[in-house]
Amino acid sequence: MSGQAFCQNASSDFSFNRIHPGTLLDLSPISDCKRLWKLNHGAMKLLLQEIRRNPLLWLLVFVPIALAAEKLNHEAHTLHFVLSVLAILPLAVLLSHATESVAAKTGDSLGGLLNATLGNLTELVIAIAALQAGQYTLVKASVAGAIVTNSLFMLGASFLLGGLRYHVQEFNRVAARFQAGLLFLATIALLIPSAVSARDSLGAGGSTKTLSVALSFLLLLAYGLGLWFSLNTHRELFAGTAEEHEAAWPIGLALATLAAVTVFVALVSEVFVGSVQYTATAFGMSPAFVGFIVVALVGAAAEMAAAFSAARKNRLDLSVSIALGSAAQIALFVAPVLVLLSYLIGPAPMDLNFWPGAVAMILFATLTASLVTTSGRSAWFVGVLAILVYLIFATALYLLPPQNT
Amino acid sequence: MSGQAFCQNASSDFSFNRIHPGTLLDLSPISDCKRLWKLNHGAMKLLLQEIRRNPLLWLLVFVPIALAAEKLNHEAHTLHFVLSVLAILPLAVLLSHATESVAAKTGDSLGGLLNATLGNLTELVIAIAALQAGQYTLVKASVAGAIVTNSLFMLGASFLLGGLRYHVQEFNRVAARFQAGLLFLATIALLIPSAVSARDSLGAGGSTKTLSVALSFLLLLAYGLGLWFSLNTHRELFAGTAEEHEAAWPIGLALATLAAVTVFVALVSEVFVGSVQYTATAFGMSPAFVGFIVVALVGAAAEMAAAFSAARKNRLDLSVSIALGSAAQIALFVAPVLVLLSYLIGPAPMDLNFWPGAVAMILFATLTASLVTTSGRSAWFVGVLAILVYLIFATALYLLPPQNT
Amino acid sequence: MSGQAFCQNASSDFSFNRIHPGTLLDLSPISDCKRLWKLNHGAMKLLLQEIRRNPLLWLLVFVPIALAAEKLNHEAHTLHFVLSVLAILPLAVLLSHATESVAAKTGDSLGGLLNATLGNLTELVIAIAALQAGQYTLVKASVAGAIVTNSLFMLGASFLLGGLRYHVQEFNRVAARFQAGLLFLATIALLIPSAVSARDSLGAGGSTKTLSVALSFLLLLAYGLGLWFSLNTHRELFAGTAEEHEAAWPIGLALATLAAVTVFVALVSEVFVGSVQYTATAFGMSPAFVGFIVVALVGAAAEMAAAFSAARKNRLDLSVSIALGSAAQIALFVAPVLVLLSYLIGPAPMDLNFWPGAVAMILFATLTASLVTTSGRSAWFVGVLAILVYLIFATALYLLPPQNT
Repeated sequence: MSGQAFCQNASSDFSFNRIHPGTLLDLSPISDCKRLWKLNHGAMKLLLQEIRRNPLLWLLVFVPIALAAEKLNHEAHTLHFVLSVLAILPLAVLLSHATESVAAKTGDSLGGLLNATLGNLTELVIAIAALQAGQYTLVKASVAGAIVTNSLFMLGASFLLGGLRYHVQEFNRVAARFQAGLLFLATIALLIPSAVSARDSLGAGGSTKTLSVALSFLLLLAYGLGLWFSLNTHRELFAGTAEEHEAAWPIGLALATLAAVTVFVALVSEVFVGSVQYTATAFGMSPAFVGFIVVALVGAAAEMAAAFSAARKNRLDLSVSIALGSAAQIALFVAPVLVLLSYLIGPAPMDLNFWPGAVAMILFATLTASLVTTSGRSAWFVGVLAILVYLIFATALYLLPPQNT
Repeated sequence: MSGQAFCQNASSDFSFNRIHPGTLLDLSPISDCKRLWKLNHGAMKLLLQEIRRNPLLWLLVFVPIALAAEKLNHEAHTLHFVLSVLAILPLAVLLSHATESVAAKTGDSLGGLLNATLGNLTELVIAIAALQAGQYTLVKASVAGAIVTNSLFMLGASFLLGGLRYHVQEFNRVAARFQAGLLFLATIALLIPSAVSARDSLGAGGSTKTLSVALSFLLLLAYGLGLWFSLNTHRELFAGTAEEHEAAWPIGLALATLAAVTVFVALVSEVFVGSVQYTATAFGMSPAFVGFIVVALVGAAAEMAAAFSAARKNRLDLSVSIALGSAAQIALFVAPVLVLLSYLIGPAPMDLNFWPGAVAMILFATLTASLVTTSGRSAWFVGVLAILVYLIFATALYLLPPQNT
Repeated sequence: MSGQAFCQNASSDFSFNRIHPGTLLDLSPISDCKRLWKLNHGAMKLLLQEIRRNPLLWLLVFVPIALAAEKLNHEAHTLHFVLSVLAILPLAVLLSHATESVAAKTGDSLGGLLNATLGNLTELVIAIAALQAGQYTLVKASVAGAIVTNSLFMLGASFLLGGLRYHVQEFNRVAARFQAGLLFLATIALLIPSAVSARDSLGAGGSTKTLSVALSFLLLLAYGLGLWFSLNTHRELFAGTAEEHEAAWPIGLALATLAAVTVFVALVSEVFVGSVQYTATAFGMSPAFVGFIVVALVGAAAEMAAAFSAARKNRLDLSVSIALGSAAQIALFVAPVLVLLSYLIGPAPMDLNFWPGAVAMILFATLTASLVTTSGRSAWFVGVLAILVYLIFATALYLLPPQNT
């Protein structure tokens, strides 16, 4: 017996492409059965439509496999690692789409805020799983890696992909400068503790922790004021950086997806975090390399797809905004939130002190991003430059892993 | 018996607002008594006028109190500290006004030179007092702090205050780039000794001192040539950065004030320097923090008042010029003069080697100032960014004071 | 019996100023004697013409003297040093002219490639001589010194010399930004190994070597793609940076000169390298200082002459392109080639790890070059700033030589 037959002629007049957000939660005098079916049916159809459109989502099949594999065989760490990476990728895409849909439905300012807060939810959930497991090296490496990957690789590949199709591309350099400024502030916050405390790095554990908490609040303040600036008082400066929400989901589906997928990301992240250390050792990689490069690329896959697609449509404004905005969000929102959360859920408080190589990489990624966006124009070689800086970092991390971090 | 009665009808035709500079020093056949009275009367009236206009000057009452307190009670260090800070503030304002008046009366080029040389006289006098007392940590901290405070806090607060009133403000970015370039040169001079001598920092005392003297001469040369460039060969590039001298004092009053107030600043600075160390300890602050933040804010109070007022009048050209010009002057004029003076008046020669944290802060303050002024446009959030960088530095210095400096 | 008499009326209709490249290699039915004489006669006349025009070439007389002196007296190291410096200068000028002539005759893209590859042949030959002698400190110092000298002194002196004649000069800032970007990439490659491996600098010799080789390939890739970008896909952005080849030599003469002079540079370089260490010690200079300053100035003499001459003709595009292009070429082509060559001809593999002071100087030279070229306009003081940064480096290196490098 099909659902269609069970609640008859329920969705015949239902246009899936242009659903009014109120429709699904609207308490009209249709029977509960019909509404629920309508919801499930519409949602399923939309989800399937999305999955058909986006081949990345076919990887969703690895979510149950990864969770099952971990239950069945506790020792196959490399398998767990590969399966969890394959499972996180489509979940990140879904999470990203759901967040955008919620943002699109809640109006410009609140929507911008939501996008800015939940845009890196995947990274946040993975990092929280690592935090709970006490793997602070992995947490810090994935935070530093996400900043560097977004501001060098995502930005550079956008420039390169766009540049291969268009001779010279232009973008909103005011918006780029704003994001680069936020990144620069965060870089200083990450850098100054080690610069100031060079000589008493051994004994001053307490002060370092206090300083990290204070700096976390300053970064969150900067992030909040930056949102107020870009979404409210000076939003006209950021024209051209807003994403088009072509096929925004209805709010009910979006919220449900957000909740469900976050749970799945959390579950898969536990498998991932539990297997990373062993896999890294097995492949001769350091946990720092895995966190810096692999986790960062996995976590940012959804944003990358969006940024690259925009670049190839000559909408470089949007690509730059996604890449630098995401990097700034990791640095000014995710990182301080993790420090503060570590007091609640971690086995011990986490500080903002990154190892010197990570600080240097964040600093030079920020400087590079600032240099390549300062003119507001781009060609393919600008992208090559940024990607090569990223490759230099990746090579150095692979061959010379940091010790004792 | 009033002075007016003593030398009758002397100043009836005397316009205080538009005194011709020659008038007061003019050897006209009026009796000495009359001229002296005229001078004193006019000067007093102008001074009182200034004091009435500027509430900060009411703090002048603390000058005798601070000097007396130090004589009466040698042990009340915290009281001495507070009184001397309160006394220095109005003296700095007077000194600044007197310098500008002398500059206004002596023509553009010489005036610009005087302003550029004496504009940070307060900082110089305080630093000389600390130099004579052998407190080299305080000297270096106050020099580094003045550079950072002027280029971050004064600049940032100007942008913020201006931005709260005007949506977007524009300023002369050529002038800003020039000052930032000078600052960058000074930063390199402060940074390179420690970068080059990383490994022989222990033994090479003699060479370090020689290097400091050589670098001091190079910085003074850069400063001199920079003045020649900005006041002479390319002055047209700096349009809009000149201060209006609305109520310039007559040259006699200005010179007398300059001399007298300098003496008072010197006297009060001794009280200040003598009490700083104890007060810092009593309040749990390091001498570095006090020098970096407190002395820098006190010494720059007069320039800050001028820069903030200009920003709120939408004259951001002037604000940027005061903030960055003052920072460049400290770095390229005050710092090398102190190094050279230390051979004459200090207990031992002082070098240009700052502790690593100070060098890092100067470097990032310079980079921040350079980044936020590069576009020639500003909005409130630009000011917030600069102020937050300053707060990061202040927090780090407060919580993680440098050791052995 | 004169050559003219020997092969009669051979060159009467021969215009030396406008030789068609084909002419000299053209197999026309003139007797071999005549053609050879024509070649030699034409070449000689052109060479002599060049020598008469360029007084620097009179120093060619020191080439045989330097080579002879080394054979005759093995101990007069200071004399050898001075003679070899005097001999290298004119050879560098000839090499530069020959390279340009070959480039001018081989068409734009191939010519640009040749110019870009052989433009720093002198530096490369000197460095190879030092490499073969196992003097890695000298090799690295001369590479670092060439980058810094070209991007600060050559650029600064061009700005200064041009600025003394013209009030404000403009140049192609897109080209400058491109070269500065390449330099910045190279700086990161030189800097990141030491930043990443801070803690295991002692034991990780093998990984460091592997990393150096990997980074060398990345730099060569960047250089190659940069050439493709500037000579091929986006050459229109680099308008105004091409050199005029007023008196390009015929291809035969150019190739012969290229080959012969390279041999002489190699021979004299051996004398130079063999005497540098002793001379440095005798004059109280470190090998690092000699390599950084003396070798760099000597090796870049030819480019400097061209850059300065262009600046005084208000062709600042060309000056900036020569200065920054040469610095980028050293960093992205000469340095990695030397690392790779060290596996073939050196006594031991050389890595890309420069001592911290050199890395700092390269970094700040790159930042300075980037800052002073960002606006595309220049005045004399901009040149002073760059030169003063160079003087700060030179002073620091002279007074505080690095140890154990």
